[in-house]
Amino acid sequence: MNRNIKLVVAYDGTNFHGFQRQTNALSVQEVIEDGLAKICSHKVVIFGAGRTDSGVHAYGQVVNFYTNAQIPTEKIPYALKGLLPPDIAIKKAEEVSPAFHARYGAKSKVYRYKIYNDRLPDPFMYNYAWHIPNIIDRHKMWQAAQVLIGEHDFSSFQAAGSSIVSPIRNLYSISYIENGSLFELVFKGNGFLYHMVRNIVGTLYKVGVGKIDANQLQQILMQRNRSKAGITAPAKGLYLEEVCY
Amino acid sequence: MNRNIKLVVAYDGTNFHGFQRQTNALSVQEVIEDGLAKICSHKVVIFGAGRTDSGVHAYGQVVNFYTNAQIPTEKIPYALKGLLPPDIAIKKAEEVSPAFHARYGAKSKVYRYKIYNDRLPDPFMYNYAWHIPNIIDRHKMWQAAQVLIGEHDFSSFQAAGSSIVSPIRNLYSISYIENGSLFELVFKGNGFLYHMVRNIVGTLYKVGVGKIDANQLQQILMQRNRSKAGITAPAKGLYLEEVCY
Repeated sequence: MNRNIKLVVAYDGTNFHGFQRQTNALSVQEVIEDGLAKICSHKVVIFGAGRTDSGVHAYGQVVNFYTNAQIPTEKIPYALKGLLPPDIAIKKAEEVSPAFHARYGAKSKVYRYKIYNDRLPDPFMYNYAWHIPNIIDRHKMWQAAQVLIGEHDFSSFQAAGSSIVSPIRNLYSISYIENGSLFELVFKGNGFLYHMVRNIVGTLYKVGVGKIDANQLQQILMQRNRSKAGITAPAKGLYLEEVCY
Repeated sequence: MNRNIKLVVAYDGTNFHGFQRQTNALSVQEVIEDGLAKICSHKVVIFGAGRTDSGVHAYGQVVNFYTNAQIPTEKIPYALKGLLPPDIAIKKAEEVSPAFHARYGAKSKVYRYKIYNDRLPDPFMYNYAWHIPNIIDRHKMWQAAQVLIGEHDFSSFQAAGSSIVSPIRNLYSISYIENGSLFELVFKGNGFLYHMVRNIVGTLYKVGVGKIDANQLQQILMQRNRSKAGITAPAKGLYLEEVCY
């Protein structure tokens, strides 16, 4: 296997049981590996930068794989076009050094979380945002979120029962974008714990409806106890936007 | 039936066999009528402003129906929320005069057609735009389209085999919006023949790739012959945006 190829992948996660290959359910990984096996004429294993859950979307998931196939790198996205279902697309392919690993080499990641904040639902947003019908103070949510910036033990926002070597992560920035009823929070950090973004958003919701303030959010962070934080926001609002190396 | 209620309806047309009720396939009309029957406690028939085809979307379809039910008008969208599938939403309800008819009373309509123009597909656009991978001259398409503005016999852009009293329509404006790879054409007119917008867009595509120019487009219009125009652009790019009374 003399070539290591990096792919940037976008997918609508609605109809997949997450990124990671599973025995009895269709995953993004399985579909891409099957497509690559056809153009490479050998079994392919891909390494993904992040294991998105069922329903989570990606604009810029990154994977890499090793191959001996002769296909020119720039042709891979086009060759895969007809082999992949329409809810997955390869945005870019490039040959990288043999040492490149999509997961272990990632320096930072960007996640976007979309909230559709309107009394009535939008049929085009159903699978693509968390519909919050009640009034939330968007600016207050974003402002309170700033207490999370920096290097912290994010145990309070880690999925209960996760076992991970270290719960310390560095959150570089949280920005927000408003466009009518759509409210998007963009998180950039050196890494994210399992469910971290969704648990932060679920806790910011409590800020938005006035149940807690920025000080209490900081206390929740410092308590390093998942049971102190808010709900896990729905998977369908989350997008893996970019992985930086 | 002493009250006439007007509803503005949005729907993602992907999973419906069009607006109009059919015997063996799920239509938008059937789903709304079934929901209304539950809140009105009597059989309801709705009259729709436009019969969108299978796969065509709506931001602002308008329907009206008669009822004796006591439910306050402004509560109807919320009452229907739990009764309709997530790909249909009622945006607005208002009581109108008994003479109001969503279809016969319409003074003008606005349709939007979305093209995703990029060499590679976007998984989030698959059901919501026509993917055109080759290079098209967007400005030239829009400029040529201006020859269609005004009152004309649009037979060249009417679905073959349609029988309609008059093929004369007044097209008020065609505007366009660009946002990266997304290219949207917005058509406003006093009415539209069956498949008219999709046939115009399919013919403008020929302008975009340089096969015909604005003069030839005008000749196609004047020939009043469907076989002279281009293909019917895919249903999934079309949105019924607004109906004006």
